[in-house]
Amino acid sequence: MQDKSKYRRMYTLEEIDRIVERSILNMNIMGEPASLYEPIEYMIGIGGKRIRPRLCLATYSLFENNISTEIIYPALSLEIFHEFTLIHDDIMDNADTRRNQMTVYKKWGNNVAILSGDVMSILAYRYLAASPAGSLPDVLNLFSTTAAQVCEGQQYDMDYEQLPFITREDYIKMIGLKTGVLLACSAKMGALLAKASSEICDALYDFGYKLGIAFQITDDYLDTFGNEQVFGKKIGGDIINNKKSWLLVECLRLAANGNKMTSLDNIMAMGEDCQKEKIAAMQQLYVELGVKESAKEAILEYQKKAMDAIENVGLSVEQIQQLREFSEQIIHREK
Amino acid sequence: MQDKSKYRRMYTLEEIDRIVERSILNMNIMGEPASLYEPIEYMIGIGGKRIRPRLCLATYSLFENNISTEIIYPALSLEIFHEFTLIHDDIMDNADTRRNQMTVYKKWGNNVAILSGDVMSILAYRYLAASPAGSLPDVLNLFSTTAAQVCEGQQYDMDYEQLPFITREDYIKMIGLKTGVLLACSAKMGALLAKASSEICDALYDFGYKLGIAFQITDDYLDTFGNEQVFGKKIGGDIINNKKSWLLVECLRLAANGNKMTSLDNIMAMGEDCQKEKIAAMQQLYVELGVKESAKEAILEYQKKAMDAIENVGLSVEQIQQLREFSEQIIHREK
Repeated sequence: MQDKSKYRRMYTLEEIDRIVERSILNMNIMGEPASLYEPIEYMIGIGGKRIRPRLCLATYSLFENNISTEIIYPALSLEIFHEFTLIHDDIMDNADTRRNQMTVYKKWGNNVAILSGDVMSILAYRYLAASPAGSLPDVLNLFSTTAAQVCEGQQYDMDYEQLPFITREDYIKMIGLKTGVLLACSAKMGALLAKASSEICDALYDFGYKLGIAFQITDDYLDTFGNEQVFGKKIGGDIINNKKSWLLVECLRLAANGNKMTSLDNIMAMGEDCQKEKIAAMQQLYVELGVKESAKEAILEYQKKAMDAIENVGLSVEQIQQLREFSEQIIHREK
Repeated sequence: MQDKSKYRRMYTLEEIDRIVERSILNMNIMGEPASLYEPIEYMIGIGGKRIRPRLCLATYSLFENNISTEIIYPALSLEIFHEFTLIHDDIMDNADTRRNQMTVYKKWGNNVAILSGDVMSILAYRYLAASPAGSLPDVLNLFSTTAAQVCEGQQYDMDYEQLPFITREDYIKMIGLKTGVLLACSAKMGALLAKASSEICDALYDFGYKLGIAFQITDDYLDTFGNEQVFGKKIGGDIINNKKSWLLVECLRLAANGNKMTSLDNIMAMGEDCQKEKIAAMQQLYVELGVKESAKEAILEYQKKAMDAIENVGLSVEQIQQLREFSEQIIHREK
């Protein structure tokens, strides 16, 4: 048999996916009192696309081919932190369901959701602490700076809800904090753990940030134009809540410049009793004003910006190809 | 002039107090958006006795006489974490006031209190990350383990509220987690930062834990028998809420063994409209059953246990005296 260990080769993205899935299944979260830890296990169990740990391991494996516990654990801390923010966000947004399941707040109440979330953010730091001692200070500082920014993004999101109008710049700033910086942190963390040069670490941060924005616009797009069966949640939630998604922000801009402001106001004023009609009317307006098409363009534009960020920092064709493949998975997803 | 720097001497507790106060005043917390950071500045501003950073610096200064930023910051992280737990506890307890001021939740609402608390817990880690790199892994693990335990204690506290009766062991377990472990962590962290032996670190952990229990029983005692002017908040809050304080837990035990269960039940059933009478009646029952006196004894007993914990680990008479003085400040306080 051939001894593969002699050959330096990158993990494939599929191999990384399997490592992440297996590691999450093997996490031992339960503790005492069970009333505190059950919601955490539940939340991790129902979760998602695991993009953050996958991105972290993907950038790590550009440089190193030994993914061990002290690399997997910090990667998982990104997922744990993300899931913690969702638990608290769902309280603030009064959200009843997530990923077709009851939210923690709905299932166990406000207080348990607050406290389980708190433990979960601490748990993220416990996983982070497994980083190799030599990388720990940098990894810890990056993580904490990012974590605070994610909270700032959520606060902007809540503040913006009170405003009738926000600009595209406001939107990008807000999702840059809410989503961009954590993907940026994920991409950079893998490179930090692999002891890549600071130039490459910074370039990967930038890559992750831009990709995070492409990711969020994709999310906004799918919430309105996705396939309900595949997407896994009701289409049109953002429309019903007048949520300042990329689509609505762009629509507000175009309507203000054109003669569609009254139509838009009328749609936004439609109530609980005509949700279906509201969704259909808004979808139609988005198509008419070209918002649907320009969302697709914006996604590609930010993916391109992400790829541009890692040009000319000395990465090989193979390394760049791996990152391109990752970015395409992000923007071509249907769920 | 005499060059004092040549002489190795311990900081006095008063000097440590001044360092802590000055460092807290100099903290630069504000960030953007202000709606997120104002509540944090407010909470730090109105706070308290600063016992945790004081204890951390006190144990550090048993071994080292150079208290610099990389020691002060981790000490402050203990205070920041503690204040964060208070913000979230006040939501869960529907508490309107703390330290004679409106609570964050009352002043800014639920959502801001959740999110500002979240940022504050992250801020604690940012301060912790200033620890010297050599101590960082140990300090970080100690802190995270402790932080999770504090949340567990709060969950037990909420779970116990639903029970008609808890034992003294239940109570000690609960306050051991809610209060004991954070003082234990504070005492040990100072020793870790000073690179003391693991035997001494563990002894100081034990010292802090026992002292934390003495501290909490003192708190419970003052809530019922303190001087309102000096204590700084209304006397009798625990009585009105039937809170399972050390006094009530002991009273339940004695009343169940004697013939006072009916009196106790009647007092506990007294409503909103006769708060003054309820407080007076419970105070009297506590005196009659000897609960008041045995609380004082329990405080002294735990202080003694704290001091016993640091015997025979090679500390000097002077070092032990410093810790004794600290412990006496804790239990002889009137606020």
